[in-house]
Amino acid sequence: MSYNIIKKSEFDKVKSFNGNWAAKMQLFADMCRYNTLVAVKKAGSGHLGSSLSALDITTYLYLNELNIFEVGLDSPDRDIYFSSKGHDVPGLYSLFYALGILPEQKLLMLRRLHGLDGHPETRIPGIEASTGSLGMGISKGKGMAWAKSYRKNKGHVYVLTGDGEFQEGQIWESLQAAAHQKIGNLTAIMDHNKYQTDMLVADVNNIEDVVNKVSSFHWHVVRINGHDYNELKKTFTELKNVKDKPKMIVADTVKGKGVSFMERPETETFEGKTLYKWHSGAPDDESYVKGLNELTGKINSLAEELKIGKIEIPVNEPEGKVSSKGEKEFVTEAYGDALCEIAKTNDKLVVLDGDLSADCKLRKFEKMYPDRFIENGIAEQDMVSMAGGLAKMGLIPVVSTFSSFLAARANEQIYNNAGEQTKVIYTCQFAGMIPAGPGKSHQSVRDISLFGALPNVTIIQPCNAEETKWATEYCVNEAEENCMLRLIIGPSPEKIVLPKDYKFKVGVGVALTEGSDGILFGYGPVMLHEALLAADYLKKINFGLKVVNMPWLNKINKDWLKEIVKDQKKIFVLEDHSAVGGLGDRLLNALVEIGIGPSSSGLSRTTPRHEIEFTNFGLREYPECGTPWEVLAYHKLDGKSLAQRISGFEDIEEKEKIAQKYTEDAPQ
Amino acid sequence: MSYNIIKKSEFDKVKSFNGNWAAKMQLFADMCRYNTLVAVKKAGSGHLGSSLSALDITTYLYLNELNIFEVGLDSPDRDIYFSSKGHDVPGLYSLFYALGILPEQKLLMLRRLHGLDGHPETRIPGIEASTGSLGMGISKGKGMAWAKSYRKNKGHVYVLTGDGEFQEGQIWESLQAAAHQKIGNLTAIMDHNKYQTDMLVADVNNIEDVVNKVSSFHWHVVRINGHDYNELKKTFTELKNVKDKPKMIVADTVKGKGVSFMERPETETFEGKTLYKWHSGAPDDESYVKGLNELTGKINSLAEELKIGKIEIPVNEPEGKVSSKGEKEFVTEAYGDALCEIAKTNDKLVVLDGDLSADCKLRKFEKMYPDRFIENGIAEQDMVSMAGGLAKMGLIPVVSTFSSFLAARANEQIYNNAGEQTKVIYTCQFAGMIPAGPGKSHQSVRDISLFGALPNVTIIQPCNAEETKWATEYCVNEAEENCMLRLIIGPSPEKIVLPKDYKFKVGVGVALTEGSDGILFGYGPVMLHEALLAADYLKKINFGLKVVNMPWLNKINKDWLKEIVKDQKKIFVLEDHSAVGGLGDRLLNALVEIGIGPSSSGLSRTTPRHEIEFTNFGLREYPECGTPWEVLAYHKLDGKSLAQRISGFEDIEEKEKIAQKYTEDAPQ
Repeated sequence: MSYNIIKKSEFDKVKSFNGNWAAKMQLFADMCRYNTLVAVKKAGSGHLGSSLSALDITTYLYLNELNIFEVGLDSPDRDIYFSSKGHDVPGLYSLFYALGILPEQKLLMLRRLHGLDGHPETRIPGIEASTGSLGMGISKGKGMAWAKSYRKNKGHVYVLTGDGEFQEGQIWESLQAAAHQKIGNLTAIMDHNKYQTDMLVADVNNIEDVVNKVSSFHWHVVRINGHDYNELKKTFTELKNVKDKPKMIVADTVKGKGVSFMERPETETFEGKTLYKWHSGAPDDESYVKGLNELTGKINSLAEELKIGKIEIPVNEPEGKVSSKGEKEFVTEAYGDALCEIAKTNDKLVVLDGDLSADCKLRKFEKMYPDRFIENGIAEQDMVSMAGGLAKMGLIPVVSTFSSFLAARANEQIYNNAGEQTKVIYTCQFAGMIPAGPGKSHQSVRDISLFGALPNVTIIQPCNAEETKWATEYCVNEAEENCMLRLIIGPSPEKIVLPKDYKFKVGVGVALTEGSDGILFGYGPVMLHEALLAADYLKKINFGLKVVNMPWLNKINKDWLKEIVKDQKKIFVLEDHSAVGGLGDRLLNALVEIGIGPSSSGLSRTTPRHEIEFTNFGLREYPECGTPWEVLAYHKLDGKSLAQRISGFEDIEEKEKIAQKYTEDAPQ
Repeated sequence: MSYNIIKKSEFDKVKSFNGNWAAKMQLFADMCRYNTLVAVKKAGSGHLGSSLSALDITTYLYLNELNIFEVGLDSPDRDIYFSSKGHDVPGLYSLFYALGILPEQKLLMLRRLHGLDGHPETRIPGIEASTGSLGMGISKGKGMAWAKSYRKNKGHVYVLTGDGEFQEGQIWESLQAAAHQKIGNLTAIMDHNKYQTDMLVADVNNIEDVVNKVSSFHWHVVRINGHDYNELKKTFTELKNVKDKPKMIVADTVKGKGVSFMERPETETFEGKTLYKWHSGAPDDESYVKGLNELTGKINSLAEELKIGKIEIPVNEPEGKVSSKGEKEFVTEAYGDALCEIAKTNDKLVVLDGDLSADCKLRKFEKMYPDRFIENGIAEQDMVSMAGGLAKMGLIPVVSTFSSFLAARANEQIYNNAGEQTKVIYTCQFAGMIPAGPGKSHQSVRDISLFGALPNVTIIQPCNAEETKWATEYCVNEAEENCMLRLIIGPSPEKIVLPKDYKFKVGVGVALTEGSDGILFGYGPVMLHEALLAADYLKKINFGLKVVNMPWLNKINKDWLKEIVKDQKKIFVLEDHSAVGGLGDRLLNALVEIGIGPSSSGLSRTTPRHEIEFTNFGLREYPECGTPWEVLAYHKLDGKSLAQRISGFEDIEEKEKIAQKYTEDAPQ
């Protein structure tokens, strides 16, 4: 199986061609589209829909407007372009390859360790801003533009935005302030492809009439066809004359542009709403080949029309890999099912979503209880405060979206709600560092710390489907205070098996293995899987590791703790989180409270010591981007590394054998 | 000295009067204004300007529109009113007193423990939503309105907003989503009094033309005179016919309405901008008497005009208390001065403010370096991302505002910036629980935890002016990563004296007292003051407490720590923060890392123990509202309580004497 892209030399050939300019641009962009498809297919995930819709705009900008090839990528006088929506970066990377900014091997390492992050990162050449969480781009561009004026540097700042992104309040903050501050060297361009995630913006939370809205914020606004190169050229040229205010181009585009079946919405609809299925994820083999063939045909015919000579297009074959995802357990599914079940008997239950219903497995609930499902779009602050209002009126709101956006973006709103002593359930999905492909904007390794200092919240992360059901029921029907339910978004690497007599009870975890050489507290399907692998590995060198599933991340029953750490010399905490502010900190405090310390004083030399070691395997750096296996290994959090860190013992007879087993089990 | 308000019986008299309706409303509102002035003067702080501007609107609503007196304050069919800007609550409390919702003794306990919180709290009768941080109200009202529809309850939801508040992005999120969701039982009213904090909205970050803006978001909008009762009546009546969309009334009002000199902006201007001085704070004696006299005159003449009979207006005298604020040390001033000084030699330094320049002592910088001062208004997310853009272009941005708003509201933006590996300095002012008058929306006791899990941030809280200068210099000129500078906003209770040989060095604190019976780590002027009082107190019972100033809240030098805790049996941490996620957690981890544990195992009965106790005096509940002394005592964090908690010894010979000394020293 190999992945082959159209070589840079072919792009150079097109670039140096002097004929029909617009058609040449089109050809260049379609060649980038071809490479984007290959890169995403190889990565196994990525955002095709908006990569394709934005490519004509970026091709136009890089080949015609930006001065970066004249003044250099590091020049303070350079023009700056970045995408606020970020997830369209596979398209941009392909363009960067075509322009010589990125080498071939990098493009084919999309979403891989030391490759190209799933969302833009400034450590990558040519990337001007790290983005991935929506709504920040115009603000950041405003800062760059201000700095240029202050330092009397040349260059203009161009920020691409999404359309769904205009549901984020920060966009409107930045529009208002940029106009007030008369930032004249800033242009925002909306890639208005009409779909956000998998539904029409107009259905989710309509932003129209956006030209009218943005104009009322005192920006100079024009609306154009974002695929028409002549219109792009004319518009950017004309806008150079508008110098006293920020400018915005609303560019009407087609999501999935260039590949016919990605351009058309699916015939499938949901509750009368059109569904779009090419927002994220790699294409299946058939679509992949079909898409490449279609682009090949276009490229060939355009090249012929232009008389540019034959463009070398490589052959790419389908992968033929059968996805095993269908057989895997998803805690998100158990959660979605549990909500549907609970709703039957609890009519106070209401679910709020932030444009991630499908990923968060809420579609079933949405269908069963349309009158109790509130789709709020990409407006987390509004969603959380709205939930506060619902709770104040006696309902039980469940707020569900990705953890990074919920815990951080709406943090003050969560505090405000909690202060009213009502109950809101915050389901923080995509918690932890896996999947690691999307990069750090999506990997949520601070969320426990962001909820931790609230005096009235219970933080829970279940380890399998069964426990997820219990946790959801507990949150909705039993808990008397706010709950933060932490769920991984992907499939569980394995189904964690809980003891038959295990009862889900506040503050009480459960041992999954026995052992007296060390005890490890972990939580969630991803890290417990690694912990169990570590225990297997350690067993072979006669190190008995007691692995404990501790779903209660900030409530620890002291009697239970005292009993379970009895006679243990080494205590380990395996976080799917930063080492700061997670379970480890709470556990250490609880140990102190029950009179158990990590070691005796160590100060008085005359006192014999009964040492207890305490080690927190939490993250102390930013989570890396890559496959689960790459990233866990990079952070030394995979089963094998953990076994080595726990035992301190590297050279073991069984090493090869275990490593072999591990490789087979590693999550894909 | 006594504080006397106009009695409820007088309000009843007016209410039952059947003559000129509009004049009667006016009279009722002016009587509320009188009581508002008395309540704020007694409290020593509070927001007069917008309490007065909003009073005609609220008087109209409670006396004419809301059904709460018919259906009851707890009825699910009740109409709901609350103020999103919250700080206008002294006016609302006065109205609540006039209407019998609150008793007299409560009104005169504004900003006191077990009295009335400085910002609205739902635990107070009649208060429908806890507010105080801006921008959340329409979202919350939307939730309430949605719940009413879902449960088929009657009643309409009215949300009052500020005008400066329309700089917050969440407002626009909520406007867009409320229109999309067709929330027809919701009306927002803007108390458009033109000033935010102390400057014109038009100067800070202009929101005009707000009618056009909000209309473009598909709301039904009208603009009226918010002091004209006939216009209010007509408008609210007409709006009842608009049922298919949310409605907004932009009510033009005058800040400080009813007291002539509070209505007029000061002649004082700043950089050509008009300054308004009655936004917050109690009036001085002269203004207090003048204001009461003016209102008395108005009330008398209106009563006479209406032939309503004499309204009993009590006599109130000036307090005659001399403020000692001028002599006290403000760390904020040292910070502002330091920035001005550093800017002389570092032209990369740029300061950003979120409409709190005066409180945050940035006016001097603003004046000296207008081209390096960015006033961003009440738009923290935009401000933080803008700072990210500035940093990306090589500048050193210092973002300065209240900690609650900066650390929580812009948390995801802070994470995004930090991920770019640039340096931004976040000055989190109003950190900690004192002053406690404003209530929990402003008391910032989660901010350390909100920054803590960032891998590249240094968190510092200096204890006096000198250390603030060093800390500011360190952040701007030396630090290689992001800094979070934590400052109290009020005067320091005393000037903390640092040893002469103390050097400000990363991770290293300094002992302020010597003692070997226990060591206490504290930080910041407020809590170190209490710690020193505790040490004084303990000294008299021969308990030697070593008080350590530890300004580095997440960086602890291990060698220094080992040395300073040597031979100590009891370790205490005094947080000006929640017990979760503050210095205590980091210190406990550091102790473990250097092999010092709070106790020996406690598990093996045969091992002799050398016990070390570790106690974290952090908050485990929401911070209370009240005077500093009341609140510190309530949380058992005042010097005396601390001495008792540390010694475990309540009945001491010296107790009376010490308590006496303490009372004299307690912050006012």
